[in-house]
Amino acid sequence: MNDVHVYDTTLRDGAQQEGLNLSVADKLAIAGHLDDLGVGFIEGGWPGANPKDTEFFRRAATELDLRHARLAAFGSTRRAGAVAADDPQVRALLDARTPVVTLVAKSHARHVELALRTTPAENLAMVRDTVSHLVAEGRTVFLDAEHFFDGYALDPAYALEVVRTAAEAGAQVVALCDTNGGMLPPQVTDVVGAVLEASGARLGIHCHNDTGCAVANSVAAIEAGATHVQGTINGYGERTGNADLVTVVSNLQLKLGHDLLAAEQLARAGTISHAISEVTNIVPYSRQPYVGASAFAHKAGLHASALKVDPDLYQHIDPARVGNAMRTLVSDMAGRASIELKGRELGYDLSDRPEVLARVVSTVKTLESQGWTFDAADASFELLLRREVTGEELSYFDVESWRVITEDGAGDDAAVSEATVKLRAAGERQVAVGEGNGPVNALDHALREALASAYPELDKLELIDFRVRILDASHGTDATTRVLVETSDGETSWETVGVAGNIVHAAWTALVDSFTFGLLRAGIDPR
Amino acid sequence: MNDVHVYDTTLRDGAQQEGLNLSVADKLAIAGHLDDLGVGFIEGGWPGANPKDTEFFRRAATELDLRHARLAAFGSTRRAGAVAADDPQVRALLDARTPVVTLVAKSHARHVELALRTTPAENLAMVRDTVSHLVAEGRTVFLDAEHFFDGYALDPAYALEVVRTAAEAGAQVVALCDTNGGMLPPQVTDVVGAVLEASGARLGIHCHNDTGCAVANSVAAIEAGATHVQGTINGYGERTGNADLVTVVSNLQLKLGHDLLAAEQLARAGTISHAISEVTNIVPYSRQPYVGASAFAHKAGLHASALKVDPDLYQHIDPARVGNAMRTLVSDMAGRASIELKGRELGYDLSDRPEVLARVVSTVKTLESQGWTFDAADASFELLLRREVTGEELSYFDVESWRVITEDGAGDDAAVSEATVKLRAAGERQVAVGEGNGPVNALDHALREALASAYPELDKLELIDFRVRILDASHGTDATTRVLVETSDGETSWETVGVAGNIVHAAWTALVDSFTFGLLRAGIDPR
Repeated sequence: MNDVHVYDTTLRDGAQQEGLNLSVADKLAIAGHLDDLGVGFIEGGWPGANPKDTEFFRRAATELDLRHARLAAFGSTRRAGAVAADDPQVRALLDARTPVVTLVAKSHARHVELALRTTPAENLAMVRDTVSHLVAEGRTVFLDAEHFFDGYALDPAYALEVVRTAAEAGAQVVALCDTNGGMLPPQVTDVVGAVLEASGARLGIHCHNDTGCAVANSVAAIEAGATHVQGTINGYGERTGNADLVTVVSNLQLKLGHDLLAAEQLARAGTISHAISEVTNIVPYSRQPYVGASAFAHKAGLHASALKVDPDLYQHIDPARVGNAMRTLVSDMAGRASIELKGRELGYDLSDRPEVLARVVSTVKTLESQGWTFDAADASFELLLRREVTGEELSYFDVESWRVITEDGAGDDAAVSEATVKLRAAGERQVAVGEGNGPVNALDHALREALASAYPELDKLELIDFRVRILDASHGTDATTRVLVETSDGETSWETVGVAGNIVHAAWTALVDSFTFGLLRAGIDPR
Repeated sequence: MNDVHVYDTTLRDGAQQEGLNLSVADKLAIAGHLDDLGVGFIEGGWPGANPKDTEFFRRAATELDLRHARLAAFGSTRRAGAVAADDPQVRALLDARTPVVTLVAKSHARHVELALRTTPAENLAMVRDTVSHLVAEGRTVFLDAEHFFDGYALDPAYALEVVRTAAEAGAQVVALCDTNGGMLPPQVTDVVGAVLEASGARLGIHCHNDTGCAVANSVAAIEAGATHVQGTINGYGERTGNADLVTVVSNLQLKLGHDLLAAEQLARAGTISHAISEVTNIVPYSRQPYVGASAFAHKAGLHASALKVDPDLYQHIDPARVGNAMRTLVSDMAGRASIELKGRELGYDLSDRPEVLARVVSTVKTLESQGWTFDAADASFELLLRREVTGEELSYFDVESWRVITEDGAGDDAAVSEATVKLRAAGERQVAVGEGNGPVNALDHALREALASAYPELDKLELIDFRVRILDASHGTDATTRVLVETSDGETSWETVGVAGNIVHAAWTALVDSFTFGLLRAGIDPR
């Protein structure tokens, strides 16, 4: 049994995020992931206000098989001067047929006047009437008190009156919302404590991250006695986003001993966070607490030796508890210990081969002083390591020459690139040409074409990202350029790096490494 | 006067971030931006441990003209069993010739044993000896007590002893570090309060964001009596990053009344945050508090009318105070105002020309939706504005065609690029060729050659920087590319932008704008 409600609003408030646009199918997929995570409540949307959300609830009734979570429909209190039972928007909430209805209500006197254009008394009547109507219809009702903290600062008596009215009318929880996100933890602690004492209502918390404190504010509210916490996966939401639900839950459970999710559910958090990123098509934030790709990545060579002895001295929790893992990064701050650790991660035991280790460290240092970087290019590092360990270069093909021509005759966005690659593979000389909308694209096509007969396995490889960094800006166009390339085989992806004075040459080097690594990973021998 | 030290460690701890790799020139550029922001201290790196950092301090002495900030060199206490005055690492700190030295020391008994491999008593001697040696050499010394909060939990007496020892030896500040980032605000409040009472030392705070609470923890420490706060721009740092200094300072200054930066300095925070992102080439996080592109963006709809009457009901602060602006995602009211302002800055009064203003807003919106950005490309924006105001394109030459060939026959770093440009200028057709170590370099040379007889004034223009950003990563090499070019005439410099599917085409567009703007600025008429 959970002592605190875990209430997810990714599908409603999270969807307010700039650039986030969810189809009904996306929403159903995300709801499935949320249920896997074990949240108690999934707020699905605003039926009636939005045809897509009406459709979501219709399909959810038959297509979603929730094991843990209960669905909530979100909507507002009835219109001023009307009757809840006759209000079409309230009707739509009932038609969504969810066990829970979450009503948003004003609790800020000036918002009542300006946005609702009604009186404080009528607003209270709207709360009372709508809550009791929905309760009478058999719904569990939660009330989101919008702009509560700002409203409480302006007129605490009125804000409190809204909470009391909702609770008396039968709302099971009144969630205090920091709608504008401007609060800091001590204010949240004080207000939650005061409202709890004055109203006796069961309180919830709903925070936004405008001061960078959404997580801390949510935790502060729970510590002050609230027993219902709202948030979104990956902190999606309008402006700076909502409280990141996984971070809030992890803090409450792993740091403060609350019992919110089963251990095996929380251990899926990383996977679920990334799976939901795939649905939203928003690039995951690598620095995200607990589940980010960098959250347990260590760069500093300084403490690599101690890291080997006792990793818990350098990480605040065991990353496996949230579905993440420790990673060691190779960088110019790295010494032998971190390269040894990285080697072990990649399956090369260098602990009894000090001469190889010394050679790798020296090669990495030399290359990094020339602008190479391996902390974001694991695949290039693995090829380098393999070369030093085995003493030989892994070579699937011998390049004779390559060339790219980029030209434009018109002046509009119509320049085309054409690449020619000449190489030997599987005993035959190949001359291939490829076109593209840029030199890297054209080279990728030509190289792929040149290798197609010798290595048909390359067909499933796809170049999915490339990044360019000019390294020594002081020389203008004479600068050194670094290109990072990310390649996917449909299941996993890897990054390779190339550095050269010529940007196209740097890209070529990274491309060759990416094809080589792809063949190595697929277990193919040079032909 | 600041009552709290604002201490930036972007160049040292921020540089630990995965994927972040700063050249000496990058570090110097960032230091200039930090000084503009008005921070009190800039930690530049670890001289001696890292040749790049040694070089940074050497060049900083002559090339950086700091108006507000004092530079700090970072390093560790002397080795166990040695003497500070004879320790080469301590010597390197003095050789950096900074007014401030920040020493990192262990305050966690188990880290002393495992990472330093020495005794608790010797660790205290290392602190005492190193601090007093540096103080005797005339340095202001700050001490970073590493792993302090975890160490305090394990053995509070020993952790406190480290603080007392450092303060007695003359350290001006002892910064308590949550190195593993696992703390929550109430713990920070308790520990800072207890250490302050027990030691009487001036305390600082250094937080990481592993629980999503780096900002809240930093603010909690200051509220508990610490008077020195460390952080990084954009929250760069290892794992989940360090405390985002702009967010911390904004909270302390705008919410809690601390007087840290001048109002006009804080009002540059948005610009400076983005300028530093351009140097690091790390895509800005749009949901970043205060300065993020989405931080004050509203999906208007429901509350649009109330938003117009009283925007302060919907935003936690006036965004102008941190150099940001409210955006409504459906209407472009904010856009007009800022473009009118920008026009005025460039000498075009658009206040009585609403039709021109509307045309500029619409052109900018269309271009920005295609990936153009004018924040960092004033020269391209001025050319655009001039075109809309005058109704005609400023054209110094007519391009017929261009072509670049990049080829490599050997496979080592020897690829060369050759460009051909055909155009008409001053009534004559010109065909010119240029070589370079990359396509942009070659195009620059060819274009310059083609224009030499018509515009000999171009001789003093020099391309001093170019930057590349891949905009739509999901399409891999089919992505849209943006190239920013910086050109100097020996006295000032200007930036232009080009966007195209083809990276070479984007660079060409930016180059043409940079030559055009250079001629316009020099007061030359088309020939």
